Amino acid sequence: MYFEGSEKKLTLTINHHNISLLNDFDDNFWQQLVERCQAKILSKITNQQCTAYLLSESSLFIWDDHFVLITCGRTNLVSAINFFIKAVKPSDINQLIFQRKNEYFSYAQPSNFFEDIKQLQQNFNGCAARFGALDSHHNYLYHLTKTSNQNLVNSSYEFLAYQISPETSEFLCQPNLTVDQIREFLQLSTILQGFQVDDFLFSPFGYSLNAINGEKYLTIHITPQQNSSYVSVESNLNLLSITPHFLSLLQPASFDLIAFNQAEFSELNNHYIPKNYLIKEQVESTLCSNELVNFANYIQPMATKIAPYTIDI
Amino acid sequence: MYFEGSEKKLTLTINHHNISLLNDFDDNFWQQLVERCQAKILSKITNQQCTAYLLSESSLFIWDDHFVLITCGRTNLVSAINFFIKAVKPSDINQLIFQRKNEYFSYAQPSNFFEDIKQLQQNFNGCAARFGALDSHHNYLYHLTKTSNQNLVNSSYEFLAYQISPETSEFLCQPNLTVDQIREFLQLSTILQGFQVDDFLFSPFGYSLNAINGEKYLTIHITPQQNSSYVSVESNLNLLSITPHFLSLLQPASFDLIAFNQAEFSELNNHYIPKNYLIKEQVESTLCSNELVNFANYIQPMATKIAPYTIDI
Repeated sequence: MYFEGSEKKLTLTINHHNISLLNDFDDNFWQQLVERCQAKILSKITNQQCTAYLLSESSLFIWDDHFVLITCGRTNLVSAINFFIKAVKPSDINQLIFQRKNEYFSYAQPSNFFEDIKQLQQNFNGCAARFGALDSHHNYLYHLTKTSNQNLVNSSYEFLAYQISPETSEFLCQPNLTVDQIREFLQLSTILQGFQVDDFLFSPFGYSLNAINGEKYLTIHITPQQNSSYVSVESNLNLLSITPHFLSLLQPASFDLIAFNQAEFSELNNHYIPKNYLIKEQVESTLCSNELVNFANYIQPMATKIAPYTIDI
Repeated sequence: MYFEGSEKKLTLTINHHNISLLNDFDDNFWQQLVERCQAKILSKITNQQCTAYLLSESSLFIWDDHFVLITCGRTNLVSAINFFIKAVKPSDINQLIFQRKNEYFSYAQPSNFFEDIKQLQQNFNGCAARFGALDSHHNYLYHLTKTSNQNLVNSSYEFLAYQISPETSEFLCQPNLTVDQIREFLQLSTILQGFQVDDFLFSPFGYSLNAINGEKYLTIHITPQQNSSYVSVESNLNLLSITPHFLSLLQPASFDLIAFNQAEFSELNNHYIPKNYLIKEQVESTLCSNELVNFANYIQPMATKIAPYTIDI
C-alpha cells in the first residue's frame, strides 16, 4: 500500500592518508555493510574515481576518501555505521554526517532519529539539529563536533519533491513500463551527457537511477504512487540550476532543496525557481565542521478545493 | 521532551428514543470509558444540556443524544468505543465519526489509524478518507456508511494552530504561571460570556480548558513548548468568526480549520482570515451520512532565514 520513500543518508569522510575506500575494500565488504541496513546491492557501475551501487533501498556511492549511503523504506542505516567502524577505527573518520528526513509512517520504522543518535554517541562525539519545522517537511542532521577543512570545496545537493502531478504519477505507475520510457520521460540525455547510467524499475512501482562521470554523481529515486508520491534527486552537480528541469517534468505541489557548501544558495534559488512556487521556510547553519548547510521548503498554494483521498479498508 | 498534542476525536450519536446519555450513564461509566483510552477524568462541569469532563489527555463532552471524546498524547481512543458498545449496541448508534490528526511521533503511539479502522470494522460498517496531503497537515476520518438526518443542523469547528510565536510560547512555558494569567492572556471573557469554565494547568507545561453554556461548548488544549507548539480549539460556536481572535494572540506560522456542516466555509474564511495567511490546501466532502466536511490549511510564508533547532542528545 504505502512505501516510505523518505531517506536516511550518511556522508562519511575518512583520513585517506591511511586508507583508500576504493582500493582497501571489496564488493563483499560493501555488500555486508549494506545488508546491515536490511538492503541489498542490485548492480554496480564504476570508474577510476567513483563506484556506485544501486540498492534494493536506494544507493551507495564510494570515492577514495568518502562514501555516501542513502537508504529508504524500513532500513536501519546506523547498523551500517556500526559495521564500518569494525574495519575503520573512529579516529580515522574525519567527518560523519547522518541525515534523516521526516517520515510519514514512522511507526513502521525499526528506529527513530533520537534512538539513532543515542547509538552513534556510543562511538562518536557529535551534535544534532532539525532543519525545518516539526509540522512541516524537515531534515534531522547529526554530525561530529570536530573541524575538518577537507570537504569545504565539496558541494552537494538534494531536491526532494512531493505530490507530483496526477498525470506523471499515472504514467510512472502504468503496468509494463520500461526503463527506457522512464529515461526518455526524465530527459536524462540533456542533463547527464557523458554519464554512465545504471537504473532499475521495481515491481509493482518505483524507479532508481545512479549516474557517475569522473567524481560527479547523480541519483534519482521515485516513489510514484498518487497520494504518497515522492521523488528525490541527489548530486554533487549544481542541482539548483537543474531543479527547473525536474519541476517542469514532475510538477510537484511542494519540494525541498538542501545544499551543502553552496554560499549562493538563496541567490541561485531566486534566479532558478519559477515564481509559481513560494518559499515557506528557509533554514541555514554553519556546522562546527565548517560545512554550510541550507534548507528551503517551497510550496505551490492550491487554488481550488479537492476531494479527500479515499482509504481502502 | 516532546508531547504529542495531535488529537484523536470521536463524535458518536445515538438513537435517543431508546437511550439518554445524560441520564442513563453515571460518572463511573464515563470514568471507565476514559480509562480504556489510558486517560483520566480530572474535573467536571455540567448544565441541563451538557456535561463536560476535563481529562488528563483532553476532553469529553456529553449531550443527551451524542458525545464528543477528544484525546491527545499516547491514547487509544478505539478502546473507548469498544467499551461503549458493551453498553449500547451498535444498532443504537446512529453515527460515529472517528478522526485522527497526523502525528509527529507516531512511532510512540499504541496504534495507527489503519489499525484503528480495522478494529472498528469488526463492529461497524464504515469508510475512511484523508483530508489533506500526506506530506502536510492532514486529518484521517472514519464514519459509518449510513445516512442520518439527525445531525445536519449541528455545525462544529476545529482550529488547529502550529508554531505559535516565540513570545507566546515563552509566556506559556514560564514557571509559576497561573490559570488566571492564561485566562487573561486568552481574553476569554470576550468570547465566553455566560459560559461555565473549567481549566487545568499541567506540569511542567500544558493547559486545557472546557467551557459550556446550554448546549454550546468550547475546548482549548495548549502544548506550548517552542519547536513543537500546538494549540487546538474545538467548538460548536462558529469558530471561523473567532479565529482572528486566536490568530492575533498566538500568531501561529500555520493553522488548519475543519468544519462540519458549514455551507459557507470558504466565504466565511475569505471574510475572516487575515490576508497575511495563504491557503495552502482545501478539501471538501459530503459524507454518505450527508454531513458536509471542510478542511483548509493556512500558512504564513517565512520571510527570513532562521537557524535550525538544536536537539539535545
